[in-house]
Amino acid sequence: MVNRRKVAVLGATGMMGQKFVQLLAHHPWFEVSAVAASDKSVGKTYASSIGSRREANLPDELGGLVLTEPKPRTLDDPDLAFSALPAEVAGPVEEDFAKAGIPVFSNASSHRMDQYVPLLNPEVNPEHAVMVEEQKRKTKTDGIIVANPNCTTAILTLSLKPLNDKYGLETVVVSSMQAVSGAGYPGVASLDIMQNVIPFIRNEEEKVEHETNKILGSMSKPAGITVSASCNRVPTLHGHMEAVFAKTRSAATPNEIVKAMREFKGTPQQLKLPSAPQHPIIVREEEDRPQTRLDVDEGNGMTVTVGRVRRDPALNGVKYMALGHNLVRGGAGCSILNAELFLAKKIIK
Amino acid sequence: MVNRRKVAVLGATGMMGQKFVQLLAHHPWFEVSAVAASDKSVGKTYASSIGSRREANLPDELGGLVLTEPKPRTLDDPDLAFSALPAEVAGPVEEDFAKAGIPVFSNASSHRMDQYVPLLNPEVNPEHAVMVEEQKRKTKTDGIIVANPNCTTAILTLSLKPLNDKYGLETVVVSSMQAVSGAGYPGVASLDIMQNVIPFIRNEEEKVEHETNKILGSMSKPAGITVSASCNRVPTLHGHMEAVFAKTRSAATPNEIVKAMREFKGTPQQLKLPSAPQHPIIVREEEDRPQTRLDVDEGNGMTVTVGRVRRDPALNGVKYMALGHNLVRGGAGCSILNAELFLAKKIIK
Amino acid sequence: MVNRRKVAVLGATGMMGQKFVQLLAHHPWFEVSAVAASDKSVGKTYASSIGSRREANLPDELGGLVLTEPKPRTLDDPDLAFSALPAEVAGPVEEDFAKAGIPVFSNASSHRMDQYVPLLNPEVNPEHAVMVEEQKRKTKTDGIIVANPNCTTAILTLSLKPLNDKYGLETVVVSSMQAVSGAGYPGVASLDIMQNVIPFIRNEEEKVEHETNKILGSMSKPAGITVSASCNRVPTLHGHMEAVFAKTRSAATPNEIVKAMREFKGTPQQLKLPSAPQHPIIVREEEDRPQTRLDVDEGNGMTVTVGRVRRDPALNGVKYMALGHNLVRGGAGCSILNAELFLAKKIIK
Amino acid sequence: MVNRRKVAVLGATGMMGQKFVQLLAHHPWFEVSAVAASDKSVGKTYASSIGSRREANLPDELGGLVLTEPKPRTLDDPDLAFSALPAEVAGPVEEDFAKAGIPVFSNASSHRMDQYVPLLNPEVNPEHAVMVEEQKRKTKTDGIIVANPNCTTAILTLSLKPLNDKYGLETVVVSSMQAVSGAGYPGVASLDIMQNVIPFIRNEEEKVEHETNKILGSMSKPAGITVSASCNRVPTLHGHMEAVFAKTRSAATPNEIVKAMREFKGTPQQLKLPSAPQHPIIVREEEDRPQTRLDVDEGNGMTVTVGRVRRDPALNGVKYMALGHNLVRGGAGCSILNAELFLAKKIIK
Repeated sequence: MVNRRKVAVLGATGMMGQKFVQLLAHHPWFEVSAVAASDKSVGKTYASSIGSRREANLPDELGGLVLTEPKPRTLDDPDLAFSALPAEVAGPVEEDFAKAGIPVFSNASSHRMDQYVPLLNPEVNPEHAVMVEEQKRKTKTDGIIVANPNCTTAILTLSLKPLNDKYGLETVVVSSMQAVSGAGYPGVASLDIMQNVIPFIRNEEEKVEHETNKILGSMSKPAGITVSASCNRVPTLHGHMEAVFAKTRSAATPNEIVKAMREFKGTPQQLKLPSAPQHPIIVREEEDRPQTRLDVDEGNGMTVTVGRVRRDPALNGVKYMALGHNLVRGGAGCSILNAELFLAKKIIK
Repeated sequence: MVNRRKVAVLGATGMMGQKFVQLLAHHPWFEVSAVAASDKSVGKTYASSIGSRREANLPDELGGLVLTEPKPRTLDDPDLAFSALPAEVAGPVEEDFAKAGIPVFSNASSHRMDQYVPLLNPEVNPEHAVMVEEQKRKTKTDGIIVANPNCTTAILTLSLKPLNDKYGLETVVVSSMQAVSGAGYPGVASLDIMQNVIPFIRNEEEKVEHETNKILGSMSKPAGITVSASCNRVPTLHGHMEAVFAKTRSAATPNEIVKAMREFKGTPQQLKLPSAPQHPIIVREEEDRPQTRLDVDEGNGMTVTVGRVRRDPALNGVKYMALGHNLVRGGAGCSILNAELFLAKKIIK
Repeated sequence: MVNRRKVAVLGATGMMGQKFVQLLAHHPWFEVSAVAASDKSVGKTYASSIGSRREANLPDELGGLVLTEPKPRTLDDPDLAFSALPAEVAGPVEEDFAKAGIPVFSNASSHRMDQYVPLLNPEVNPEHAVMVEEQKRKTKTDGIIVANPNCTTAILTLSLKPLNDKYGLETVVVSSMQAVSGAGYPGVASLDIMQNVIPFIRNEEEKVEHETNKILGSMSKPAGITVSASCNRVPTLHGHMEAVFAKTRSAATPNEIVKAMREFKGTPQQLKLPSAPQHPIIVREEEDRPQTRLDVDEGNGMTVTVGRVRRDPALNGVKYMALGHNLVRGGAGCSILNAELFLAKKIIK
Repeated sequence: MVNRRKVAVLGATGMMGQKFVQLLAHHPWFEVSAVAASDKSVGKTYASSIGSRREANLPDELGGLVLTEPKPRTLDDPDLAFSALPAEVAGPVEEDFAKAGIPVFSNASSHRMDQYVPLLNPEVNPEHAVMVEEQKRKTKTDGIIVANPNCTTAILTLSLKPLNDKYGLETVVVSSMQAVSGAGYPGVASLDIMQNVIPFIRNEEEKVEHETNKILGSMSKPAGITVSASCNRVPTLHGHMEAVFAKTRSAATPNEIVKAMREFKGTPQQLKLPSAPQHPIIVREEEDRPQTRLDVDEGNGMTVTVGRVRRDPALNGVKYMALGHNLVRGGAGCSILNAELFLAKKIIK
């Protein structure tokens, strides 16, 4: 794939937007040709706009890009767009791009539950990709919107996929311990989170409960799994840890669950997509793993690390811990892997 | 009660031992007459032994006490003893004191599950106190051992008590976010917990599962509640936060649960014991409370703060957050309240 | 003093404003009769406006106060006003109050360096209080503005006072490690400070360098001490730690410095003002004290704790560590002590 | 250099030992052939010994190495040894290796101030390398000991080198903010450092003051610079931040200092040694950099990042901030670069 696709990053200056740019900086298939952000940044260079929050290794050619408004006509015809726009503004902007014929891969929550928008975790429900055909028919354009899940849900559903495939999921309880970067920048005030646990993240539990069912369901029907979430913010920078309790329809021992997780490979692995981790799920043997700081970057942030798989007497199922990088598997990385899937499957050109 | 009882604190130099001394320093019924610790501290003054870990407000007369070995004969006949000894050594030491006729109120886990040792959370199962009569009969001494629960369990069972009384508990799932002080001093290395969640605390889940049933059961039989715990260490100093999912035998709405919790008063409140908080349980209305840092000291650390009581679709029950001070309600404070109960009830003199 | 003065707190909803209200809640001389804040809070109750940031123990009668605009006419004739307004708005608002004849004790930086405004750290330069007479003459009103120093400067100058009195200060180097609460709320983003040191706080070094000279100088002339500051933000909640290197005009050994600090008492101690700590400076013997978390609340936050006084070969003087509570000695507490001083000295009625 | 030298890592299981192994894992010139540690680990595999502290990416062939005692005869003739032994045991062990003819590159403090041991920060004083000839003569063996500086000193002296070369250093004041990994593992207890600054690190200030003079001096005489340090522990994981105040013999403006730092290249850069960072010193323009978390890994941890170079009125010189990775430039990385220098210069074979 010699000619790299030109891509625009919408909402490029936020925490998630920067992660998109970082992951795309040396991507074999994509080349960032435009960065867009809200009014107050327009006209500045990308580097000057992010200023001291510039983390590391941003190539100069990207730092020098001038920020434009997130409107299709202001951008120089990208082949596709990645959206890290905040939910309040993402909805209509993404529709504008889609109407202009530009495929949008979006991390925003605005369209995730729309009927014809695939909510795609590429190892979990790649077959949902074709939902975009209905979308095109309905909007009468070539443009499409493809969403990736909420961060907590992306990590959860990847860990659940092998259980659901092999044993059928009935009930899931999840209690999360989520890092501050999940709230964007400036996001959580230091005075609110230092030495603290905040047991509330607005709309998060609803997202986990609904999105999980859309992702693990068929294209026409949610999965019918009873999901109950408790979402908590803890003082860590990156990485969402989840305590999962799951009941399957057919009985499965912890060993069988571990085996199913270890053997699992998804379409991205089969297609050897550039952002696909070798192991979508790693199951650790140690009694005290995964740990947020030690395991968050596994598979360049695309792997979900599982540990402590054991019997759960409450649901009469299994319980385990799952950890993933909220900005990569739970955000930009997932979105980019979706775009790779669409190209490899020739759903977009 | 003009004459204050002379009390010894065993294991006085550790994190929990210091909390005992701090809570006893100005206690109306008790006077610390002896502090005991392991060999290497014996002979030093208490103040010099704790050195720079001395937190604040330690009265000089306590700081000047000379540490002795934790043996009954080396101490000057205390009326009772509080034990903050580490589990590895607590067992036989506490038995020695009991045999010497000195009632021991212990925070150690060694004897918690012993058949005739009451495992007492004084608002929850005060009726278990009389189990000590069996203990005396069996050991043929006047000495008794009374245990208080594991920190996580103390907080959990207090929050569950009104549900169990009124609706009957069937199943409980709990995922905890526990502070580092729960592991004592030096305890958790900073390199292990900064920016990290450690999803494992040795023996903690087993304690929560077994102790909860002993506490909520009758004197002769555990309660038969299915409890499933996931215990996690997070980077906070004090305060254990718990995400609880509970199914009761008779149906109860979240509002009914809140009402039951708010109306709950225990024996310590009725007896107006010195360490009894006015409200054993406080239920907050705000959508984002309890919070560890803001609510940990409620009721001088003896109150459990509950919030976010809502329906749980997974167990078809309720879910809520509960927070308590692991060193006070979950440790020294609970033990002292037990001793107060025994005195008020004249089970000891 | 039977009749408590009615006081208004301007900027009451911010971090520092809350600290004012908290310290005034049970004050023997003052009674909060009005709370004022920016437009968007006006008309709400104080409790609802601070919402989940309400820390603890706020009396219901204060929580129920309705927020007004910070204008003299909207408030019901307070006897005096405390200002925790942000620097951007404090200037003219405080002048309005002064013109209306209401003495203003301000934590804002706006008027600190004004010629006739006393910049008062009450143990350090109480004799500057009479500068308000010039102020009245100039503004032709009875209203006055009295400023307290920047947080870092308040802690620093209190520690320097005995050295300056006894040995004459020539040069001071200070490198600070400041807590996040110094930046107000929401202030420092968690993503900016977790696992980080930020070696820059806007205008802070200039404030330390200039204010120190005004405070330690005479009413008509700055002190002429060469002060060089490096101000750093570190991940702590409350408490500014300062590494101080000082050269005095007459030679002094570390022991002499310790003695001078220990013997030091200020006017507030002599007058036994309600907020005056018994010991304005405590010098600890331990080699590893002061420590931020352990010593920040010393003297209810009004004491500066000093330690590690030792020879400094670079300036050929002494070096030591000084710690104080940035919101109390470094803010609201200092301002309240100033007002107490003015009342006790009958400079205001 | 086709044949990689066989190297032993002494004290391989600690925090610094692991960093050695990590940096050597894919080194072009070295191959870890032996790992040694204290008695209780001997006989275990390296991977099992470090257990859950295994950070990431440890190659299986290194994880499978069996730990031996740190004695020359138990190891299979390494070409050279790196020592991360604790100071209490390093002294005689390193001498044994040297006597056995094995060059030792040591991070321990035991021999740093020995007369004939070069204390080498390879960009700063590479000319000291030849001191080992005296060492050989004196010990009558081929074995040599080469020390790298204390972590704080390594970062400081690299930043000072261009000033000293060009303008001559007279006086240096440094106040450090050091990360917990500098204390090894388990090192600093979480209860001691969370929400805290500890203004004391045993022997650290003495090391900074003495080692700086040895490094910046000639082989026969210390530099005669007056150095005054205040060393503080802050709650960060990795990276030591230093507030530096420096007076040079010839006057230099901040701009001149910046220029000197930017132009500086050392022998390792000229020789293009594998571990030499392209820029030994990077000077940032932003007013709020360097920052610990953002800049610690610059140059793979070998670069010192400087910022905020400005005039210092106290010493009548300059003041600036310097940041480096305490385990890399301040430890294992420096030691490895020393060994590379010795090989490139053919001082060892």
